[in-house]
Amino acid sequence: MTRKEETIYFNRGVPAEESLPFEDIAEVFSDLPRNTRSDLLRYGNSGGYPPLKKILAGFYPESSEVQLFVANGSLQILDLIANHYLDSGDTVLVESPIYDRALKIFRRADLEVTGIGLKEDGIDCDELNRAFDEQDPKMLYTIPDFQNPTGTTTSKEKRKQIAELAENQSFEVIEDSPYRRLRYEGKDVPTIRSFNPGAVFQISSLSKLVCPGIRIGWLVGSREITDQLAEYAEDTYISPNQLSQGIIQWLLKDGWLEQRVEKLKALYRPRLRATLDSLERYFPESHWVEAEGGFFVGLWLPDPGKAEEFYRLVEKREVVFSSPNGFFPEKGGEGFVRLPFPALKTTELEEGIKRIAEVWHEI
Amino acid sequence: MTRKEETIYFNRGVPAEESLPFEDIAEVFSDLPRNTRSDLLRYGNSGGYPPLKKILAGFYPESSEVQLFVANGSLQILDLIANHYLDSGDTVLVESPIYDRALKIFRRADLEVTGIGLKEDGIDCDELNRAFDEQDPKMLYTIPDFQNPTGTTTSKEKRKQIAELAENQSFEVIEDSPYRRLRYEGKDVPTIRSFNPGAVFQISSLSKLVCPGIRIGWLVGSREITDQLAEYAEDTYISPNQLSQGIIQWLLKDGWLEQRVEKLKALYRPRLRATLDSLERYFPESHWVEAEGGFFVGLWLPDPGKAEEFYRLVEKREVVFSSPNGFFPEKGGEGFVRLPFPALKTTELEEGIKRIAEVWHEI
Repeated sequence: MTRKEETIYFNRGVPAEESLPFEDIAEVFSDLPRNTRSDLLRYGNSGGYPPLKKILAGFYPESSEVQLFVANGSLQILDLIANHYLDSGDTVLVESPIYDRALKIFRRADLEVTGIGLKEDGIDCDELNRAFDEQDPKMLYTIPDFQNPTGTTTSKEKRKQIAELAENQSFEVIEDSPYRRLRYEGKDVPTIRSFNPGAVFQISSLSKLVCPGIRIGWLVGSREITDQLAEYAEDTYISPNQLSQGIIQWLLKDGWLEQRVEKLKALYRPRLRATLDSLERYFPESHWVEAEGGFFVGLWLPDPGKAEEFYRLVEKREVVFSSPNGFFPEKGGEGFVRLPFPALKTTELEEGIKRIAEVWHEI
Repeated sequence: MTRKEETIYFNRGVPAEESLPFEDIAEVFSDLPRNTRSDLLRYGNSGGYPPLKKILAGFYPESSEVQLFVANGSLQILDLIANHYLDSGDTVLVESPIYDRALKIFRRADLEVTGIGLKEDGIDCDELNRAFDEQDPKMLYTIPDFQNPTGTTTSKEKRKQIAELAENQSFEVIEDSPYRRLRYEGKDVPTIRSFNPGAVFQISSLSKLVCPGIRIGWLVGSREITDQLAEYAEDTYISPNQLSQGIIQWLLKDGWLEQRVEKLKALYRPRLRATLDSLERYFPESHWVEAEGGFFVGLWLPDPGKAEEFYRLVEKREVVFSSPNGFFPEKGGEGFVRLPFPALKTTELEEGIKRIAEVWHEI
């Protein structure tokens, strides 16, 4: 009787369990000053707790006056934009593949979604330009840093082009950047927003940097959109969670996050390395993105025609993936595999990729 | 030079500041066991944190198997129902006047809203029946206990009728009960849901019982609606705040809430009494609801024709109200005044009502 293999979960885009900073949060909580303590329990501002907003604004030293909107996670912000800022029937452009939950939100709000192909250096700008010739898009949703689900980083040149397109065509860009600070290799690329702060709204989150359970996400944008979002939020959930915001603003004081980010990089860098090295070693004939940060490495099987058989067989080898189709606005998901690496140990990553390759080679 | 009068704020339906239970929450937090601590920081279940759901289910001992959905406050639940459970164009019946934020949510979701008059013992059932003859309503939204904004409690007889109507007409009822446990006089009336658990969904919240900053609300209903709401929630904000839910479930263990409710009643009962007594003493010619609990006493000026002048003059006497029109689905707000009493001391309540009466008598 052979021993059953341990399941490898490649379907969870979550932080490593061992990174959850409970002790730091507990320490901060017990030291909260009196006025913060009362703040925690009241209804708050619908656009976010001002002391937290002040700290988050400090993440953008290049902007003299930063307008912020804070919500119960960044997905909630996308939902408010899709349902209330945009009108049903509006066309939204997205990279293809793209974060599956964003896609669902746009569709649910009766927006027209057009997928634009993704190249190694970001969105296909020719295709993007063609979309403007053929349609009247209102918004582009893009994840330029270590994209979900592929790990792709958009080049500086393309970021500039996207920003200029926004300027010329009077449409707006949502730059979703939850992974931006988690770069394990290479150098930062300027944000799209830095090239056109007026028409580019940047969304971010503490889910990957602190932890998901606190549900804190934010948008940086014009006064106009942040005020509007605060109004929509008030009529949806009155105010975001004060308890979370009150604790976390205190935690983020005095450079805690900077140290935290360095620790996360030290934890995740070898995991990314193990993922890329294992692909090179066990599955060189496949195609993958040389991700330099974030949570994901996108993998394409050598032959999409055999993908269905592969998915069926790999399950028997106890390797679990997210369904690839959810990431694709149109067809084209066959043969795509998203590999989230932060919550797996290097040995698990190697073992998982070895199994993937073995299954493929047996077909 | 006369000293400026201190402003009396009758525009805040919030708990008393001195009631916010920070010390109890801090104590619980420092005692959290290890497995709860990790739970707090992860993504959670989109339908709520199971240990909290278990405790909340204990609030309904009459039901053998209670299906619950927990969200970031109860307004968020109404928003999910309005936008996803119902279809745009559906007709929703509401009491008139009604909670202004609920009204806004229904309207924003492109629902048809029909206001049904409110009598001293609850909704006008004749008018309700006529609405069925003339329209095809999908839902009734009602606040039967100490209604917001009037303080009205619906009689047992009418609750039965509403429940039966739901049975006969294959439509559903939302019974919003955030104030139910805060009864300062008289006896509990059975919930509408108790007469027809299949077609009545009850919504409640910890905002008034614990504090608003934790943003915890829930719905009790069929497995069908709770499962659907959990799905909508996952695609809107992934999961409600885990940190809040983890702390609060621990706080609610071992009968803490029962003691808490008794303390709140002891704090708020004299405030309700002072409100009603002051109306009797200073403004007997006006009409008001003899509220027996909750947060509000609804007041009607003796002559709606003079309401505009009254609102203008009362502002100069430093008395602030919520705009009455927001509570009315159609016209009819002239001369209505909502008096929230829990966050004001008895002396402030008396002073505020005295000024209201003085202004009226000067017109």
